[in-house]
Amino acid sequence: MGSSSATPTINRHPTSQVVTIYDRYFLIDCGEGAQMQMRKYKVKFAKINHIFISHLHGDHILGLPGFLSSLHLMNRTNDLHIYCHEPLKEILEIQFKHSETYLRYKIIYHFLEEKQSEIIFEDDKLTVETLILNHRIPCCGFVFREKPSLLSIRKDKIEAYQILPQDIPSIKKGNDYKAPSGKLVPYKELTYPPKSPESYAYCSDTKYDESIFPQLQGVKILYHEATFLHELLKRANETFHTTAKQASDVADKCGVQKLLIGHFSARYNDLEPLLDEARKGFKETYLAKEGEVFSLN
Amino acid sequence: MGSSSATPTINRHPTSQVVTIYDRYFLIDCGEGAQMQMRKYKVKFAKINHIFISHLHGDHILGLPGFLSSLHLMNRTNDLHIYCHEPLKEILEIQFKHSETYLRYKIIYHFLEEKQSEIIFEDDKLTVETLILNHRIPCCGFVFREKPSLLSIRKDKIEAYQILPQDIPSIKKGNDYKAPSGKLVPYKELTYPPKSPESYAYCSDTKYDESIFPQLQGVKILYHEATFLHELLKRANETFHTTAKQASDVADKCGVQKLLIGHFSARYNDLEPLLDEARKGFKETYLAKEGEVFSLN
Repeated sequence: MGSSSATPTINRHPTSQVVTIYDRYFLIDCGEGAQMQMRKYKVKFAKINHIFISHLHGDHILGLPGFLSSLHLMNRTNDLHIYCHEPLKEILEIQFKHSETYLRYKIIYHFLEEKQSEIIFEDDKLTVETLILNHRIPCCGFVFREKPSLLSIRKDKIEAYQILPQDIPSIKKGNDYKAPSGKLVPYKELTYPPKSPESYAYCSDTKYDESIFPQLQGVKILYHEATFLHELLKRANETFHTTAKQASDVADKCGVQKLLIGHFSARYNDLEPLLDEARKGFKETYLAKEGEVFSLN
Repeated sequence: MGSSSATPTINRHPTSQVVTIYDRYFLIDCGEGAQMQMRKYKVKFAKINHIFISHLHGDHILGLPGFLSSLHLMNRTNDLHIYCHEPLKEILEIQFKHSETYLRYKIIYHFLEEKQSEIIFEDDKLTVETLILNHRIPCCGFVFREKPSLLSIRKDKIEAYQILPQDIPSIKKGNDYKAPSGKLVPYKELTYPPKSPESYAYCSDTKYDESIFPQLQGVKILYHEATFLHELLKRANETFHTTAKQASDVADKCGVQKLLIGHFSARYNDLEPLLDEARKGFKETYLAKEGEVFSLN
C-alpha cells in the first residue's frame, strides 16, 4: 500500500503491505496514512489480527496509532497481536496516555529478538519467521511459509488396493500403506505429487547482506527494498539501503521465482529506471506500487 | 486540508489547516497524512515556521512526527516553533529517540495554558491568542488578529495644509496634526477611513460553550467544528463536540462575517445536510473541505 521511502511524495505512500493466506490477513508495517490506503483498497480492518513491524523508523510505524485508534472507534473487541521491537510499546502507550485513549480491545505484544532469527507465528497453515536485516537500527524482515499440505489420494488406487476409509488420513500425511496382505505400498504410488508450499519474504529496510540468503533460498516471492539506482551505491551503503541491482542479485542468488521491489527514494519521479536496472539482473521483477496485488499461486 | 473527525474516510482526512497572513505560514493541527495533503495543495514545507496544536487527540497530531521528520530530511536548519500542550514534547521525543532521529533544526516549544486564554504569538502584523475550548482533554482554539494598519494619508490634505514629510508618520499612526499656525487638525480629516483589521478564529474540538463568545465577537471568519447533525445532540454532548446548528448559533451570536464548518463524523457520506442545517441558522456558512481556500479580504 506504500512504495515510498522516508519522504512520501504525492503519489507514493510510506511502507505498508497486507498479506493474505487462507483468509488470514497480516499487516506488515504501517506507515503514515496506511489506514486511508486500506480503505482505498478495501481491506477490511476487522480482519487484521496480526501486525508485523520491521523496525521503528517513522515511515514504517507512523500510521499505527491512527489505525489502532480507528479499530477502537469501530468497536473492535478481539485481541490484536503486534510483533515488533520492544520500544514500540512505549511509543504507542504514551500517545494513548496523553490522548486519554482506552482501547476496547487488548494488544498482545510479541517482542522481536534483535540478533537472532526466530519463528514468531505458527498455526496449522503457516509459519512466520524473522530475518535479521542490516539497517541503522534493529530491523527484521519476515518470511511467511505455508506448511506442506496433506497429500491428495488417487481414487483409482483406493479401488485397486481396496483401501479402507480409516487408513486414508495416514496415507495423506505421507505414510506408506500396509495392505491386509502385509504388502507395504509406498505413499507416493497412492497419491498425487504434492503441491509445493508457497512462501513470501519481506525485506525492508536493509543493506545488501548475504547472511540472510540461507533463509531466502527458494522462496516463491521476495519483496526487497530497492531505494536507489546502483549509481548511488555509496549513498545506499551510508544509509543502510539497497540498490535495484543489488536487489536483483539477492533474487538471483536465492533462486526465488518473483522479485518485488519498493521503498523508492523520493528523488525518482519515474520508477522505470529502477525496474529496468533490476530486470537486467533478474527478469521476473515487478514494482510493488500502491494498489498492486501479487498472487502466490 | 482535512475535514474528518477521528475516523478518516476515503475522501476526508483528519484535521489540518494552513493560515497565511503577509507571507507568514501557520500550520494549525497536523492530522495523519497532513504532509501528503500539503504536497497535494502545494504548500511549501520550508515556509512553515509556526505550528499550533489544539490538543493531543490522534486525529490532530498524528501527522506531526512524519512532517517534522520530512523537514529534517529536506535539510531544514531554521528553528521551528510549536505551540502545544506540554505532553506533546514527550510524544515526539520518544518517537525520535527510538528511531534514532536527530533533527537538523531546533524545535522551540511554547506550552499552552490549559485554563486561561493568552497571547501566544505577536509580531508587527498580528497576534495569536488561545481560546479555552470545552473538550474531553485540554484543548485550545486560536484567534489570529491582524494589527491595525497605519492610516493612509490624503494627498489633497498634504497640499492644503502644507504638511511636512517629517510630520506624516505621526498622522499615519492616528495622531492629530498641529499646523505651524498652531491649529490642531484631527487625523480623521487628513486620512482615509482605516481598513478594518482581519481576524480568523479556529475552534476545534469543543462542546458548544458560550464562555468563548467575548473573544469571538466580530471575528471576520470563524472555523467551528460541526461533527454531528443536531438530531445527534445527545451524542455531541457526550463526546464534547458540536452540532451544525450549534455552530451556526455561535456564528450568529458572535456576529462573525463567515462561518466555516468541519470535523465531520465519518457517518455522513453526504455533507449537504450539515451545510443546510448550519445555513438555516447562519446564511454565510461554508464547508471547510479538503483543498478549499477562503480569503479574508
